[in-house]
Amino acid sequence: MPPATVISTPSSLTLSPLSSSYSTAKKAPSHFSCSNVSTRSPFLRNYNLNCRRFSVICTAIEKEIPVSERPQTFLRESDGSTSSSSSSSVRARFETMIREAQDRVCQAIEAVDGGGRFKEDVWSRPGGGGGISRVLQDGTVWEKAGVNVSVVYGVMPPEAYRAAKAAASDLKPGPIPFFAAGISSVLHPKNPFAPTLHFNYRYFETDAPKDVPGAPRQWWFGGGTDLTPAYIVEEDVRHFHTIQKQACDKFDPTFYPRFKKWCDDYFYIQHRGERRGLGGIFFDDLNDYDQEMLLSFATECANSVVPAYIPIIEKRKDLPFSDRHKQWQQLRRGRYVEFNLVYDRGTTFGLKTGGRIESILVSLPLSARWEYDHKPEEGTEEWKLLDACINPKEWI
Amino acid sequence: MPPATVISTPSSLTLSPLSSSYSTAKKAPSHFSCSNVSTRSPFLRNYNLNCRRFSVICTAIEKEIPVSERPQTFLRESDGSTSSSSSSSVRARFETMIREAQDRVCQAIEAVDGGGRFKEDVWSRPGGGGGISRVLQDGTVWEKAGVNVSVVYGVMPPEAYRAAKAAASDLKPGPIPFFAAGISSVLHPKNPFAPTLHFNYRYFETDAPKDVPGAPRQWWFGGGTDLTPAYIVEEDVRHFHTIQKQACDKFDPTFYPRFKKWCDDYFYIQHRGERRGLGGIFFDDLNDYDQEMLLSFATECANSVVPAYIPIIEKRKDLPFSDRHKQWQQLRRGRYVEFNLVYDRGTTFGLKTGGRIESILVSLPLSARWEYDHKPEEGTEEWKLLDACINPKEWI
Repeated sequence: MPPATVISTPSSLTLSPLSSSYSTAKKAPSHFSCSNVSTRSPFLRNYNLNCRRFSVICTAIEKEIPVSERPQTFLRESDGSTSSSSSSSVRARFETMIREAQDRVCQAIEAVDGGGRFKEDVWSRPGGGGGISRVLQDGTVWEKAGVNVSVVYGVMPPEAYRAAKAAASDLKPGPIPFFAAGISSVLHPKNPFAPTLHFNYRYFETDAPKDVPGAPRQWWFGGGTDLTPAYIVEEDVRHFHTIQKQACDKFDPTFYPRFKKWCDDYFYIQHRGERRGLGGIFFDDLNDYDQEMLLSFATECANSVVPAYIPIIEKRKDLPFSDRHKQWQQLRRGRYVEFNLVYDRGTTFGLKTGGRIESILVSLPLSARWEYDHKPEEGTEEWKLLDACINPKEWI
Repeated sequence: MPPATVISTPSSLTLSPLSSSYSTAKKAPSHFSCSNVSTRSPFLRNYNLNCRRFSVICTAIEKEIPVSERPQTFLRESDGSTSSSSSSSVRARFETMIREAQDRVCQAIEAVDGGGRFKEDVWSRPGGGGGISRVLQDGTVWEKAGVNVSVVYGVMPPEAYRAAKAAASDLKPGPIPFFAAGISSVLHPKNPFAPTLHFNYRYFETDAPKDVPGAPRQWWFGGGTDLTPAYIVEEDVRHFHTIQKQACDKFDPTFYPRFKKWCDDYFYIQHRGERRGLGGIFFDDLNDYDQEMLLSFATECANSVVPAYIPIIEKRKDLPFSDRHKQWQQLRRGRYVEFNLVYDRGTTFGLKTGGRIESILVSLPLSARWEYDHKPEEGTEEWKLLDACINPKEWI
């Protein structure tokens, strides 16, 4: 499918906090708790678009406004052009990168799906920023595929900056403007032997507080790509992890082992004692490397999505399967729902602060199942998957 | 079906905080936040088995142990017999009441279902208490029906008692032992015109703190019954609310209007701006009436479940329906999952503190669905249901 097709197709989707602007709060939702705050580690190092730290803010976000045409950029004019030349700001180059990645992934999905087309929703917020949500639902190969990009301008409260390392401890800054941009995607295929994929890459920047001498501008990267099959096809899981490792190894040999473990730790369903899937890579708050290097790394990771995932789908999309396979896939989708609604920081924060709900919840599968006390028989293929979710393995 | 059948049937289920003992904490789960605490209102008046206040505790609970036979009582010996004579303790009479209600509801469900049978799981905790979980899954009429009772002995931390009104403000008590017991049930039928029912009745008691002169023993009641149809059959909703009102009116004319509104407010899916269903009654922290009167009221409410619900199911269980009706029911089940996993205090607290997971999550439907940006056409039957969830109505 040529790029032009994507451009002209009405399509949709954006995941959670990326669709959030924290600037002009309208109300504090009653279910949102101010006390949901950890102050044990410095705010600034720990902010990420999954908004662990931003739960301090206690404000609802601006209502998004649907836009009929995709703008050239969601950046404010002051943030410069979206050309990808290295003279452009990191903000501008990151936006260009995620929008190109969105186009590329959507093209690849549509090409393999054959029948389904992405529906696109474009929206903006009065305070700046906006997003493009794309959803393909009930296609030939995918039950539900969402690929979102968004850009957020917001202001974080003084309390949030208080812990910043570099700020003079006796000075308290006023509200600090911040910028955030990201791509987020969940792809749920129909065939129980074709795995679900999730990826999300994001960049965050604050302004330097004007009223605290010496307190610097801060920035960091976060993201990851992870695979959630209902059945283990070792060859597929190895292929997936190998591509992740190759992307990591181009930058730092410690990245893959570190981010693989981080991924296993993050996608943990605490109340089940199991992970939602077979992992991949995940990182957050990354700022202790050269900024250009990390921009290149995030770009490499986003570019790896298609080669890591599409070949697996091409091999598995038409495999024959029984009701038993479908039912197990549906139970695993139930676990996916549990993780996303109970633990995923982006989802839970987005829901409680008034992000674009349909974009946030597009990560949920088209259908899911909960059976009371279901336990796969030891030694079965279902049991092997569950075992690997309970005891994460090294795949390569 | 005679009572004996229930007694001899292996069956199952118990909802969330009821399955919690707070006494001997093993570890603080990493996803559980100590700061998830509101100190704005007195702890003791506000504790309930949905555990709003108990999120202060920050401890995991004891692992439950399966038991092969149902004991005569889950009470400690010191709490007296389970005879329902008025000389028995309220604890004992409440346990008797909920166990009788469990038997009665399960018998009525099995009788109407015709094919399905409840699976029972009995369990206890070393620190005292235990529960009986019963689940009927994939029956003729019900997709999933769970009816749980449980009894919890625990200890609440000194921080929790600090705000108790009657305690001398300059004295800080040690840990306060508490007792909690409740029945909890969710019934999801197959037919899209047959509504889902939820009910939950619970009793809570603390000891008087030994080290704070004048600080009293505290107690309160909570609970409710609410209806969640996928389609409005006005006659059914009116019947259901009428039975709730009749139960309330026997005790206080202010109960129904007050608890009807409380129900509409509680079962609110904040991020959707809609309730999960068409309400019923809900109350919590109820202790400003005569204790015997409230025990009778809770008993009356529990006894009203069968007459309020079963006649509706008998009329609707065999109605013909199309794929469209089934699909809408599945979307509404998705909303049920969202409410329970994101907002329901019992569920979220239970998941984060290590309650019996299968009992907690038996409230989830057998299957659910999420379509991107689904909006029923104005004026359709689906739209009418959604409208009533957004704008609660007076049904009687």
